[in-house]
Amino acid sequence: MKFAYTGIEVKDMNRSIKFYTEALRMEMLDRHLIRETGGEVAALKSKDSPQLLELNWYPESRYHEGSELDHLAFEVEDVNDQIGKLTKMGAQVARETEVRSKYIVGFLKDPNGIWLELFQARK
Amino acid sequence: MKFAYTGIEVKDMNRSIKFYTEALRMEMLDRHLIRETGGEVAALKSKDSPQLLELNWYPESRYHEGSELDHLAFEVEDVNDQIGKLTKMGAQVARETEVRSKYIVGFLKDPNGIWLELFQARK
Repeated sequence: MKFAYTGIEVKDMNRSIKFYTEALRMEMLDRHLIRETGGEVAALKSKDSPQLLELNWYPESRYHEGSELDHLAFEVEDVNDQIGKLTKMGAQVARETEVRSKYIVGFLKDPNGIWLELFQARK
Repeated sequence: MKFAYTGIEVKDMNRSIKFYTEALRMEMLDRHLIRETGGEVAALKSKDSPQLLELNWYPESRYHEGSELDHLAFEVEDVNDQIGKLTKMGAQVARETEVRSKYIVGFLKDPNGIWLELFQARK
């Protein structure tokens, strides 16, 4: 179980990428469409920092003031096992677990209502 | 200019520390009171990850659904110089620059209204 990156929701992907790469000098590691949702995702980091920031854009945005914090992501070995443990310790299930092409992904809410993504690489 | 950590606001510091350390198995690197505000801050990371998460608690909380994303933090060489550059590229000043005991700290808003902390170690 390790904290993998912070994901924020953005209103306009091009504008946010321009700001984070040109103004804040971050590097874009990856940008791709999400076939399942029609959304888009970009991964950014600064040259001398290991901290990762993910920008998320959704075609049917739920963006409103305050929804910028999309999720905190944790890599785990067994998503369902962790969901069982974490819901006993104060987390709530936010969305049904999804089996995607490369990952199994679950979403919980922490005690502040912050979405936590748990992802597990498929073998 | 490098992305240093993600800070979230929490409603109850003890409850959030318990959840992030016991349920999500993160390690607490630091926890201390902020003399200037009467608030409290804690720094967390997972054992095998360099990603840092900061929990922030304020005595006069501005917490409401969606305000969980407190700020993204960037370490810079010259806060005032960066504020000048970034405001020309779409950022807005969120708070007056503060000279604290160890750091000079400025706050901007990015194009999504997300608070960006710029901090510079005092020489």
